Amino acid sequence: MKIGFIGLGSMGSAMAPHLIAAGKPLTVHNRTEKKAESLISDGAEFAHTPGGAAQGEIVITMLADDAAVEATVFGEDGILQALPKGATHISMSTISVALAERLAAAHAEAGQGFVSAPVFGRPDAAAAGKLFIVAAGPAEVLDTCQPVLEMLGQRTFFFGEEAAKANLVKLSGNFLIASTIESLAEAFALVGKAGIDRHAYLELLTETLFSAPIHKTYGGLIADERYTPPGFTAQLGHKDMGLALDAAEELQVPMGMASLVSERFLTLMAAGAGDLDWSALGKLAKRDAGDDDAPLAAKG
Amino acid sequence: MKIGFIGLGSMGSAMAPHLIAAGKPLTVHNRTEKKAESLISDGAEFAHTPGGAAQGEIVITMLADDAAVEATVFGEDGILQALPKGATHISMSTISVALAERLAAAHAEAGQGFVSAPVFGRPDAAAAGKLFIVAAGPAEVLDTCQPVLEMLGQRTFFFGEEAAKANLVKLSGNFLIASTIESLAEAFALVGKAGIDRHAYLELLTETLFSAPIHKTYGGLIADERYTPPGFTAQLGHKDMGLALDAAEELQVPMGMASLVSERFLTLMAAGAGDLDWSALGKLAKRDAGDDDAPLAAKG
Amino acid sequence: MKIGFIGLGSMGSAMAPHLIAAGKPLTVHNRTEKKAESLISDGAEFAHTPGGAAQGEIVITMLADDAAVEATVFGEDGILQALPKGATHISMSTISVALAERLAAAHAEAGQGFVSAPVFGRPDAAAAGKLFIVAAGPAEVLDTCQPVLEMLGQRTFFFGEEAAKANLVKLSGNFLIASTIESLAEAFALVGKAGIDRHAYLELLTETLFSAPIHKTYGGLIADERYTPPGFTAQLGHKDMGLALDAAEELQVPMGMASLVSERFLTLMAAGAGDLDWSALGKLAKRDAGDDDAPLAAKG
Amino acid sequence: MKIGFIGLGSMGSAMAPHLIAAGKPLTVHNRTEKKAESLISDGAEFAHTPGGAAQGEIVITMLADDAAVEATVFGEDGILQALPKGATHISMSTISVALAERLAAAHAEAGQGFVSAPVFGRPDAAAAGKLFIVAAGPAEVLDTCQPVLEMLGQRTFFFGEEAAKANLVKLSGNFLIASTIESLAEAFALVGKAGIDRHAYLELLTETLFSAPIHKTYGGLIADERYTPPGFTAQLGHKDMGLALDAAEELQVPMGMASLVSERFLTLMAAGAGDLDWSALGKLAKRDAGDDDAPLAAKG
Repeated sequence: MKIGFIGLGSMGSAMAPHLIAAGKPLTVHNRTEKKAESLISDGAEFAHTPGGAAQGEIVITMLADDAAVEATVFGEDGILQALPKGATHISMSTISVALAERLAAAHAEAGQGFVSAPVFGRPDAAAAGKLFIVAAGPAEVLDTCQPVLEMLGQRTFFFGEEAAKANLVKLSGNFLIASTIESLAEAFALVGKAGIDRHAYLELLTETLFSAPIHKTYGGLIADERYTPPGFTAQLGHKDMGLALDAAEELQVPMGMASLVSERFLTLMAAGAGDLDWSALGKLAKRDAGDDDAPLAAKG
Repeated sequence: MKIGFIGLGSMGSAMAPHLIAAGKPLTVHNRTEKKAESLISDGAEFAHTPGGAAQGEIVITMLADDAAVEATVFGEDGILQALPKGATHISMSTISVALAERLAAAHAEAGQGFVSAPVFGRPDAAAAGKLFIVAAGPAEVLDTCQPVLEMLGQRTFFFGEEAAKANLVKLSGNFLIASTIESLAEAFALVGKAGIDRHAYLELLTETLFSAPIHKTYGGLIADERYTPPGFTAQLGHKDMGLALDAAEELQVPMGMASLVSERFLTLMAAGAGDLDWSALGKLAKRDAGDDDAPLAAKG
Repeated sequence: MKIGFIGLGSMGSAMAPHLIAAGKPLTVHNRTEKKAESLISDGAEFAHTPGGAAQGEIVITMLADDAAVEATVFGEDGILQALPKGATHISMSTISVALAERLAAAHAEAGQGFVSAPVFGRPDAAAAGKLFIVAAGPAEVLDTCQPVLEMLGQRTFFFGEEAAKANLVKLSGNFLIASTIESLAEAFALVGKAGIDRHAYLELLTETLFSAPIHKTYGGLIADERYTPPGFTAQLGHKDMGLALDAAEELQVPMGMASLVSERFLTLMAAGAGDLDWSALGKLAKRDAGDDDAPLAAKG
Repeated sequence: MKIGFIGLGSMGSAMAPHLIAAGKPLTVHNRTEKKAESLISDGAEFAHTPGGAAQGEIVITMLADDAAVEATVFGEDGILQALPKGATHISMSTISVALAERLAAAHAEAGQGFVSAPVFGRPDAAAAGKLFIVAAGPAEVLDTCQPVLEMLGQRTFFFGEEAAKANLVKLSGNFLIASTIESLAEAFALVGKAGIDRHAYLELLTETLFSAPIHKTYGGLIADERYTPPGFTAQLGHKDMGLALDAAEELQVPMGMASLVSERFLTLMAAGAGDLDWSALGKLAKRDAGDDDAPLAAKG
């Protein structure tokens, strides 16, 4: 089985090596070839266009946003025109529900398979093969893809035959993370201003009812007030809240908390702090509590 | 060491037996004597007034709200006038920061000790001795109390010498629970309206990033749409959000998410659904999504 | 001066007669010809395509939304390819800032003029020539258009040379109306549940500090609980809040109140009540106060 | 008819002269006698206690908050014990619904009359006798008071026999003002960041749909960015939002917009800007839009 992999950002470049390690003939594509160098030295071929990486049975995309995926699939020398009939596109990027629906329709019309398989996990989880994968698509297509997904993640959760459902689940998950961050931000602002030790408070939370990975990760960052370097930026958080709210609007589901969190990320961005980690909602809450005089962002 | 225990509601009646089991001479008081019957048959004495239960070295209160604690401490035949100098009042109820400060001052003036020691955990945890206790108060008083607290909980977390700090931490924790419930409520409303299986979604959450007890407990209730019998009612949730917001106002800490969640509980109450479990925010989100035509509350 | 007018909905069909009355040779276009009948009998010509109405010095569009304007301008036989060099397109629809920018650029590239001139006022104001017009565009183009705008409105307010600024101002105005409606909705829910007479309350408001047309119009509708027939639907209100929030996101301006109001409109839509007047936020607030048991929407 | 007037702050000292001008024998009381000087020179007597000013047929209170009114009525040498049977207390302060209910009950029990008559209008309106008065109380008591109220305001609006209803109406009105301010704040932040002239925008608003006194007053202050000296401080705005939300909670009426506005005032206070005019929400919105680098408050 010949596989193509498109998108060698911090996530993609941590995922692709697992395919080589599994002995799969791999063709990679990235806008800048430089990022492909170590993969090439490990045996991957480089394709200069998305279509060039879409010659085998499966092509995987792991890209930054809707625009990148659209260009890669529908653009010149794109996946749609290059992918053989019967071959499958696995879209692992965090994209909108609407684009996923459009991709599913376009590939179906072209006689190609399409699976949405976005992931939970940061680059270190990707490198360790510990991603959680949320997959949806036609059952027989998923069956074909599952061995490949197993190389990339520790477990795949299936959400039925409509690919876009996996994207909705992914976006709802990012909403849950973001709202957890905002709630921790407000709680730390409150107890912190009262003079309570932030790390004692963190220990209480994470050793009792709030012991999930999201509490440990984001509670830790907020307790430490360590918002840089970002694992995932406030700006990306805002983008994903926007995608979640778009899906909610389409389904007519009011989500007051998602709106509130979205506005908080936008406040960070307006202050020039959009490239801090999204846990910097903790910094914003502390600032709004009058407990931090420093500007949210260092001046340029 | 002779101990008094006041307040035999669902929490108190699950906690007091641990003191008898530990061999402590126990005097209990409750507004209605009936709830004390099994404790009496196990060896406890019954006092007809709060003051009557405050004759020993320690008296514990576990009551519904500020008003009940105020009446019990400051009222006629109350704790304040009965408790011997040097003896200690351990307040384990979820009460306001302001009342805790007032209690600390009044007991200090009377030459009595005072410790705030509110708990995390539902009645089943109390019965199993598995409560988490958040304690604050003067160090030497806490030292005296700690053996007693160990009989009641699995672990005590200390937050310094000012008793009211423990109450602030407790209220902030309830805010974190409530905001988790609202975020789950919105997420389930979203994916549920899209036709995604609620239990498959719950499994994804709780086996990946959202694996804390709060996720399992409240995610489970929302996935099941099982809002009765209540473990903790929406009305109590609203009360506690009010106490958290009062503390936040006093400290001048804006908490937009706490305000939002407070309004959601109030909406349940206005619909006559205040006595559902506070996870009924899930029902409210589903109703607001137009995905549940049934009224929020059964008609009286 | 030969004028084209495209879009004969409730607004457009009330505006176009003023141009005939002013003695201008008028060509009209509408998707369905039927709505043009009375104009034709008054002397207007009918064009079967947008381009057919764009043969003179000025073409005016008054359409429902971005999609309609896009199709009319950029589509086959559209305005862009038909309009003579040096002639001007006056866009009076409530559209996005982004589309207005795109239109300005496209027309400029084609050597055509472009002016944004959205309006405040309902169909009755349009029929009476009492619209308020918010206009922006290159000064010399605006000069040419002003005599035409004077036929359609009672006053034109100018906002500089960038056409899209007028659209931003219009959207911000609709936000101010919508937020006024929500505030009145909450206030009436509050005093109404306390048993205060709604019309006595309305009189107090409108004869003291709250005497603006928006207070009289929307306060009156909410006091009367008269949400149908709609002058402007909740669904359109939601659409416009979306456009305002899109512009705010692009400019990085957090607007918490706009987000809140947007979610309220979405709640009406989810309940099947999106085609009520947007003042039906008053019905929603009353329902949420537990003071109105009737469903928000009649069942289909 | 002998009248007492208690509370000579910025409002009270502008109101009391109208009673002297009307030829009424007036006894005034204020915590500091100094503020009474000009009234004394105009013929008023000074009483050194609230009770001393409550010897006639009517005593009026115009005080800062619940605490001041409570002390004045229920305290030592207070109104309650001094006021003759059959005489009436007119409470014109902005106080809580709960306190108004308590006052009505206490005065009734003491055989005294009680009327709530809070006002709309700033000190300049008070000085000009142009206040709007919102009154409620037993009909025959109101009849007695009406000639006095006519000396103080341009018009009285009646809201029935339960005094506290007038307070609810007053609080709902302050909520409407505050929400108007926040909506203007967000709108100006939006158009201002886009480079639109703030005064041209203000003119558009106030000469079209937004022509009420509140729009002119607060739109003007926000357009000018003139937040000091305060006519009414952000801190007082926050207090009144709290009273409105307390009433809403008691009546079980969710008011999401009131909560949001309350949090905004609290954010100003946390930044040390609580003593700016409450229109400083405009400064906060601009700051949050990243369009104003200056701190919200001058450093102490």
